[in-house]
Amino acid sequence: MSGIAKTPEPPYYAVIFASQRTNGDRGYGKMADKMVELASQQQGFLGIESARDEELGITVSYWDSLDAIKNWKEHAAHQVAQERGKAEWYKNFSLRVCKVERHKFFEM
Amino acid sequence: MSGIAKTPEPPYYAVIFASQRTNGDRGYGKMADKMVELASQQQGFLGIESARDEELGITVSYWDSLDAIKNWKEHAAHQVAQERGKAEWYKNFSLRVCKVERHKFFEM
Repeated sequence: MSGIAKTPEPPYYAVIFASQRTNGDRGYGKMADKMVELASQQQGFLGIESARDEELGITVSYWDSLDAIKNWKEHAAHQVAQERGKAEWYKNFSLRVCKVERHKFFEM
Repeated sequence: MSGIAKTPEPPYYAVIFASQRTNGDRGYGKMADKMVELASQQQGFLGIESARDEELGITVSYWDSLDAIKNWKEHAAHQVAQERGKAEWYKNFSLRVCKVERHKFFEM
């Protein structure tokens, strides 16, 4: 789904979402794909990076403003996904909103 | 190795490291474990989260100041690992330094 996000020059914002899943898929994979697609259509979206192994999943989305993050948080379809996440899919999660102050890319 | 990092109240700093690996281990796993252990002994270290799948690895480390990040970047053993990373282990990577402005935890 994702590689390394090609974001513009800082400053911009990052939302770091780390989660530990409950067992079984129960519609999670499909919803996750749908949310990535929907997020990427939102105003102010700059990119997304995601990795998951047995212990933890980390998804970082990048945005051009705090308003864009707020609008995505309050998006109706995303609200539904958030509720199902709490009820069914996640054992634990953390959500951090950050200002990216500098970045560096390395390509071989 | 890691679950969700229990960080103190914001503000604090995050370093988001996303990477795509070359094929084969070639000492990577051992060095990665060693670097996590060493990082966690540094002054100002607050926690670390890490996930890797076939496409991407994401490691986020948390620190109490930009000075702590700078000291870790310049740590001699970490410098050696960084050079081997560029030469052998990574196809691409990105490094972002961020100020965490707010966070939220959910535990079932």
